[in-house]
Amino acid sequence: MRSADQPIGVFDSGIGGLTVVRALRRLLPGEAIVYLGDTARVPYGTKSHETIQRYTVQAGAVLQRLNPKLLVVACNTASAHGLPALQSVSPCPVMGVIEPGAEAASKERVVGVIGTLATIRSGAYESAIRRHNPATEIHAVPCPLLVSLAEEGWSEDPITEAVCRRYLQAMPPQVRTIVLGCTHYPLLLPALGRARTEARWIDSGEVTAQSVERLLKGGLGFRTESSRGPFRVLLTDAGTRLKEVGSAFLGEALESVELVEL
Amino acid sequence: MRSADQPIGVFDSGIGGLTVVRALRRLLPGEAIVYLGDTARVPYGTKSHETIQRYTVQAGAVLQRLNPKLLVVACNTASAHGLPALQSVSPCPVMGVIEPGAEAASKERVVGVIGTLATIRSGAYESAIRRHNPATEIHAVPCPLLVSLAEEGWSEDPITEAVCRRYLQAMPPQVRTIVLGCTHYPLLLPALGRARTEARWIDSGEVTAQSVERLLKGGLGFRTESSRGPFRVLLTDAGTRLKEVGSAFLGEALESVELVEL
Repeated sequence: MRSADQPIGVFDSGIGGLTVVRALRRLLPGEAIVYLGDTARVPYGTKSHETIQRYTVQAGAVLQRLNPKLLVVACNTASAHGLPALQSVSPCPVMGVIEPGAEAASKERVVGVIGTLATIRSGAYESAIRRHNPATEIHAVPCPLLVSLAEEGWSEDPITEAVCRRYLQAMPPQVRTIVLGCTHYPLLLPALGRARTEARWIDSGEVTAQSVERLLKGGLGFRTESSRGPFRVLLTDAGTRLKEVGSAFLGEALESVELVEL
Repeated sequence: MRSADQPIGVFDSGIGGLTVVRALRRLLPGEAIVYLGDTARVPYGTKSHETIQRYTVQAGAVLQRLNPKLLVVACNTASAHGLPALQSVSPCPVMGVIEPGAEAASKERVVGVIGTLATIRSGAYESAIRRHNPATEIHAVPCPLLVSLAEEGWSEDPITEAVCRRYLQAMPPQVRTIVLGCTHYPLLLPALGRARTEARWIDSGEVTAQSVERLLKGGLGFRTESSRGPFRVLLTDAGTRLKEVGSAFLGEALESVELVEL
């Protein structure tokens, strides 16, 4: 029996999804969270549809063993390619990060989306935005290097700014609102902001946390204990610079991780 | 029974090892080659020792089914972490790319090595160079972004040049010979060369091909048919931009690939 005290399961291809956990823990500090990052096989953004879908379903099965009340696919690439397959086998509700970001974006007349190659090629943001507002003009641009730059920690670097400027050149000047369609990108906001000073950025982590709150209110329920919610991190590989980079994404020290196999 | 007509098996974490195949096919055009790229789980350069070792042994087992006369681990990261484990279970000889590069480098008094985080952290180049020449002064620098830049195709780009300059700044000016300790890096030679105009570069693919030729001469034997050797490519994922990027690495059109599971 699943109760409101069960954890929220958060899945990501790596550690970028910790930016979603950060938003969740800020908005819903009492919730228990179990995070699973497939750090052994990261990144997903360059893989094929079939592989991303298979990996997403495998990850969902591992999190189901912990009986979560809700699964959040915190990775845009996994949301774009694996969400329907995971939803079709999951005994609990599953939400991705694209729908909340798309809903926020659909309020604009013209909107930009940046993401990995696989996310942009899937067309998932276009479909989701058009479901809310068929008239929105959408400019989607893949930015493959940004994940590596975020993981290298060059968040406020002139090189990163030059890369951002290069990618964002592909968007016409009337694009004033841009969706950060990858969980790594919030870390690059300083460089992105300098590359496109007039833009407003939609952080899919922030809007996803708000959607989670609505789902809990709407029936899944809030954890009943008043203490700060426990937080577990499961990873498929504890690679180099994990704690350093992970703490930057999480916004607090990444204390301990457990290794699992997928 | 293994004969000289059996193929040479080449393993890499992704498609970077195609630069080694390119060198092999130039030097030994009659040899049959089977290439296995673990494109579903690439890159290895950010993973832990244990994971890289496990993946390398799995890949070796797949290639063994094709009864190769020799296995070449074309990936520096896999060579640094997985070679002894693979050698201990392989029925045929196994060589990596680090030993040939280190042997060439050991002829210098001062030498630089660039590679992935995992390759540089392993200290494998230092150990191998010192076995040949304990007096060589070694400056090893991890360059995590270069793989992504090579895969993005920004080989002759001012941004890539700026990244190379940043990394190479860590090497004192007396370093005049630098080992390209990652199979992706030969593609970046234009930018690397401009970032360090006075340097001579050791391409581990080139020197590995020469080592393979010595092994064939030394007993493994050359393929007896005089036609151009057949070439098969097995990959664990056919992701985005594969043929385009693969052809750049290979130096000829990447015609067809077969998908396998690891």
